[in-house]
Amino acid sequence: MKYPKGSRQSHYTSLSNKQSYKTNDAFANRGMTLEKEIVESNNYYLESGKAVIHKKPTPVQVVQVDYPKRSAAVIKEAYYQKPSTTDFNGIYKGKHLDFEAKETKNKQSLPLTNIHPHQVKHMKRIEQHGGISFLIIRFTIKDETYLLPLEPLLVVWEQQELGGRKSLSYPFIKEHGYLIPFQLQAKVDYLSIIDDVYINGGD
Amino acid sequence: MKYPKGSRQSHYTSLSNKQSYKTNDAFANRGMTLEKEIVESNNYYLESGKAVIHKKPTPVQVVQVDYPKRSAAVIKEAYYQKPSTTDFNGIYKGKHLDFEAKETKNKQSLPLTNIHPHQVKHMKRIEQHGGISFLIIRFTIKDETYLLPLEPLLVVWEQQELGGRKSLSYPFIKEHGYLIPFQLQAKVDYLSIIDDVYINGGD
Repeated sequence: MKYPKGSRQSHYTSLSNKQSYKTNDAFANRGMTLEKEIVESNNYYLESGKAVIHKKPTPVQVVQVDYPKRSAAVIKEAYYQKPSTTDFNGIYKGKHLDFEAKETKNKQSLPLTNIHPHQVKHMKRIEQHGGISFLIIRFTIKDETYLLPLEPLLVVWEQQELGGRKSLSYPFIKEHGYLIPFQLQAKVDYLSIIDDVYINGGD
Repeated sequence: MKYPKGSRQSHYTSLSNKQSYKTNDAFANRGMTLEKEIVESNNYYLESGKAVIHKKPTPVQVVQVDYPKRSAAVIKEAYYQKPSTTDFNGIYKGKHLDFEAKETKNKQSLPLTNIHPHQVKHMKRIEQHGGISFLIIRFTIKDETYLLPLEPLLVVWEQQELGGRKSLSYPFIKEHGYLIPFQLQAKVDYLSIIDDVYINGGD
């Protein structure tokens, strides 16, 4: 699945402007696969009876709805809202799981602007009540996906509030996070990490 | 907050048709308060550090989006989707909670058509994985709200599939459910029932 470094880049630059735009778009879509792969992994977990984890729908503020006779209501005007919690939650081995997935095309860090303050607050609350909360972070270009527990995230988050660095660096994530293995049925097999780190002890 | 029996009813019947329509509409809105009251109770639980329970956004299938320059994306065509899980979930005392809220103007039963088969399937999965799943049912006219655990719901659900009655009768809910007390800060104080029935044992 990995391309030799730069091969993709040189392919793009040989295309005309318009095609290049389209191809870059396709590349952007490839960058959007983390969420899709987690949803697929969750489906596998669900069907195999391992866990019940769902993605929350994106909240939408509906302004105008039409009710045509004999057919479904049509939303005519609505706006995306900022989610006040995380993207995914559910239950695994009796534990409440709650996490957010982020991916970046950066090679060296994930900017903290990707994470909202109310999401961090929510994650803290989850752990205070006995749940498990974490980030799944993908470095698209490296094709590496990490599970970063809440604790190291909080360290960087609080340092940022005191004027510290405004991103999670790749070496930091590599040191404090766990590389999520690729599995054929669960492409983002994060539950294997949950087992090692949270359920069977460790860290 | 409780009116003498029938007083509300007689007030409506003395109104003209048109007014009556409007008033009934307002009455219908009053019927929509259960969800709102649960959301408010959840806010109270959240702020007081008791539990973290959120309503999931209604899933919407977006067909067309406009991206005006310098302003937020506008959804121009979208449709409501059937939720595949329940309305509410979260964590309380380390336990995963997952439930659905239903209200009815019927006096004698809640029709099972109010509950989708995939929701029942979801609720069963939650309990299989060690979570707590239940219904909150309000009889609007009686002004009574019950917590009905999954188990009695399943009994009626499975009998229905074999040709049994297609509703949860009021006497059945009264017998197998728990009347949720009204509290000033948590108007639907279902966590008090969770404590009695699930956390501190009982039933």
